[in-house]
Amino acid sequence: MQKPSIPKGTRDFSPEEVAKRNYIIQTIRQAFERYGFQPIETPSFEKTETLMGKYGEEGDRLIFRILDAGDFLSEVPAEVYEQHSSAKLATYISGKALRYDLTVPFARYVVQHQNDLSFPFKRYQIQPVWRADRPQKGRYREFYQCDADVVGAKGLWQEVEFVQLYDSVFTALQVKGVTVKMNHRKILSGFAEIIGAPDKLIDFTMALDKLDKIGKEKVEEEMLQRGITPEAIAKIQPVFSLEGDFFQKITRLKDLLASSPTGLEGVADLEFIYAQTQQLGLQTASLELEVTLARGLNYYTGAIFEVAAPREVALGSIGGGGRYDELTEIFGLKGMSGVGISFGLDRIYLVLEQLNLFPKTLEHTLDVLCVNFGDKETLASFGVIQQLRAQGYRVELYPEAAKLKKQLAYADSRKVRYVVLIGETELAEGTAILKHMQTGEQASYPIGEIGKVISEK
Amino acid sequence: MQKPSIPKGTRDFSPEEVAKRNYIIQTIRQAFERYGFQPIETPSFEKTETLMGKYGEEGDRLIFRILDAGDFLSEVPAEVYEQHSSAKLATYISGKALRYDLTVPFARYVVQHQNDLSFPFKRYQIQPVWRADRPQKGRYREFYQCDADVVGAKGLWQEVEFVQLYDSVFTALQVKGVTVKMNHRKILSGFAEIIGAPDKLIDFTMALDKLDKIGKEKVEEEMLQRGITPEAIAKIQPVFSLEGDFFQKITRLKDLLASSPTGLEGVADLEFIYAQTQQLGLQTASLELEVTLARGLNYYTGAIFEVAAPREVALGSIGGGGRYDELTEIFGLKGMSGVGISFGLDRIYLVLEQLNLFPKTLEHTLDVLCVNFGDKETLASFGVIQQLRAQGYRVELYPEAAKLKKQLAYADSRKVRYVVLIGETELAEGTAILKHMQTGEQASYPIGEIGKVISEK
Repeated sequence: MQKPSIPKGTRDFSPEEVAKRNYIIQTIRQAFERYGFQPIETPSFEKTETLMGKYGEEGDRLIFRILDAGDFLSEVPAEVYEQHSSAKLATYISGKALRYDLTVPFARYVVQHQNDLSFPFKRYQIQPVWRADRPQKGRYREFYQCDADVVGAKGLWQEVEFVQLYDSVFTALQVKGVTVKMNHRKILSGFAEIIGAPDKLIDFTMALDKLDKIGKEKVEEEMLQRGITPEAIAKIQPVFSLEGDFFQKITRLKDLLASSPTGLEGVADLEFIYAQTQQLGLQTASLELEVTLARGLNYYTGAIFEVAAPREVALGSIGGGGRYDELTEIFGLKGMSGVGISFGLDRIYLVLEQLNLFPKTLEHTLDVLCVNFGDKETLASFGVIQQLRAQGYRVELYPEAAKLKKQLAYADSRKVRYVVLIGETELAEGTAILKHMQTGEQASYPIGEIGKVISEK
Repeated sequence: MQKPSIPKGTRDFSPEEVAKRNYIIQTIRQAFERYGFQPIETPSFEKTETLMGKYGEEGDRLIFRILDAGDFLSEVPAEVYEQHSSAKLATYISGKALRYDLTVPFARYVVQHQNDLSFPFKRYQIQPVWRADRPQKGRYREFYQCDADVVGAKGLWQEVEFVQLYDSVFTALQVKGVTVKMNHRKILSGFAEIIGAPDKLIDFTMALDKLDKIGKEKVEEEMLQRGITPEAIAKIQPVFSLEGDFFQKITRLKDLLASSPTGLEGVADLEFIYAQTQQLGLQTASLELEVTLARGLNYYTGAIFEVAAPREVALGSIGGGGRYDELTEIFGLKGMSGVGISFGLDRIYLVLEQLNLFPKTLEHTLDVLCVNFGDKETLASFGVIQQLRAQGYRVELYPEAAKLKKQLAYADSRKVRYVVLIGETELAEGTAILKHMQTGEQASYPIGEIGKVISEK
């Protein structure tokens, strides 16, 4: 019989991996709650119609659909079946699909429960999502998203708070030197206006977004291919070489976008966010203006965020977000501005691994192992076991009276801190031997004192 | 446009529901860890072949299958397509399926990672599972299971510890008076032996299992229908009226099963578990022997557990489990005995609701709301906000300078404990007004002291 395996793009998590992932999730969750976000959870699958058409054509193809239960072909008209088309057939045999992200289910949630919610509604959601992407290093078919969004309010203080929130989380995780990059949809619109190609906004920004990766020449080439004129490209030259700190860039953008009221609105928003952030201070992160940042432009309508890992880790984006007016319009509820950010759990995990930032305590999943010498001794051991568990320690009784060597080898493999031994002699004396596994030290104490001894060490 | 909705049998969870569910999950998780169990996580979907055939015919039909991505029909041979059979077609177009329980994925995990694990391997797993069951009150298509299992050891102390674990969890949840019912596969085999119908074990126990629900007469009727003779039914009469405490039942069973060595082995196991439990004591639960208990008999080979909610809540089983030798045999690894228990999250939730046992603090998801009077005042408010968040409080800034009445109404809807107000006067003075929402009391303090004032209250 072959060893069983799991579907490609999915993962099993060992106890140590779960502990490390939970450490990150708990840190994010705690920050979300301190910033006033409330948790919601939505079902793993939604009605297919809720998801389809929300992520573009490419997205639609990456949605995992669930086969209807029972005799699903009985719902398929004969003429459809005869067409032998996967796409057509799918619409008849799968009414449900796995969640592709947390944003669309959140929009659906807000519209469905609008009468029970108080706005502004600040929610966070930490749940898995599924995508039928080609699996590759660091990209999985099942992965967690950690999102915080506010819906139903427009004040720019929310953007200010999101910068603070990113800083809080990465400071708490001891990841120093992350960069929160910001841009604004209206600045990009302004660029498209001043080069006289407002209809080419998407083409222009999609090319500009690649500046970091492929360099200026290739970007210009792509712009030409996308139908942007050489004159327009000449006009936009200052954008390619925008240097200096946030404030200096703001000053240059005001010049550059002087003839675009939309562009200037974007600049003013970022200026406000930057000024407040300067006043409030950041603990370990820094804020940068990056005019090439686009991230799913069709989606965002205001500020755009992206978080870059510290320079020494070549990992790219570990978070992102932005403002999207009309979040809930796709489900028929207008006038609901939303703004939110996301943390990339898998990437953050890699950052902590590379920088060796996981607390060493996470490697210990067991505090005490009680050796099993037989039924009478074991019954006495429970005097220690119950005492220590009540104090909050993680305690295991070896389940069988196996050879001592085997039990101690198991204790080693579990990286346990202490082993408790109650053999025949100890049973008679009412004592227990406490052995510290790292130092090898051991001593005998009355059973009732073991808890006190451990908590004092 | 119609309001969007979710697939039948699934649920959205509001912030209050998430908080309550997490309270239960955290309590169970903490107990699992104190008892030495380590968390693992497995993918939401497994290869279809991993799941199919493991849950019986009925189970196979209830497994949610995932449609292969892309042009799935291209993999279907023409002659299969022509047969127009849902069951046949499904095997070609869906190679993955959603997890149906946590036990089979755990067995798969153990076999797949056997070389990296130390045995006995004590794992817990708290994850959702999916079943295409007909939805009804209290039965969902997506629900959580909370399982703890040990694999690779046989000692009966594990069963003793599981009784302790049930007692610990329900005591921690303040649910007093749960009953841990126990039975043993070998006792049921013994009954089948002494009535001379060992081949009718399943029929016999399936009928016996219904004694509580349909009464003795109907059970006898069903046994007759299932081919058990009137003579056999006459012989088994004492089973229907087995009364007394655990120990008295043990004594009677020894008589009844005197001619069945297998039956006596089962009795001896339960006697051991009971005797140790008597010595160790239980905080709020009680242990009962229930010879009619069968629970998925094909599965269990030793002790069988089921936990009944306190009598005043008519809710039935809130947990269960048992020993199953050869857990991993289905994946080709022999000689691995397993024993485990499960907690029914949804049922436990209903018990806590009915008995009003959720801590009142769970209703408060926000500690402090800072009123927004404008940008200058808001900037000053951050003096309070950052201070309180650093102390661990959950603090929200109202995102816009809306009317005070609107902001206070929002504070009420969030059930917030305190509101902080920094208006023009306070801004000039460097103070903040702290208003206690329940009592209506309010007073002014220097901004730097608000944290101290709140933590002292």
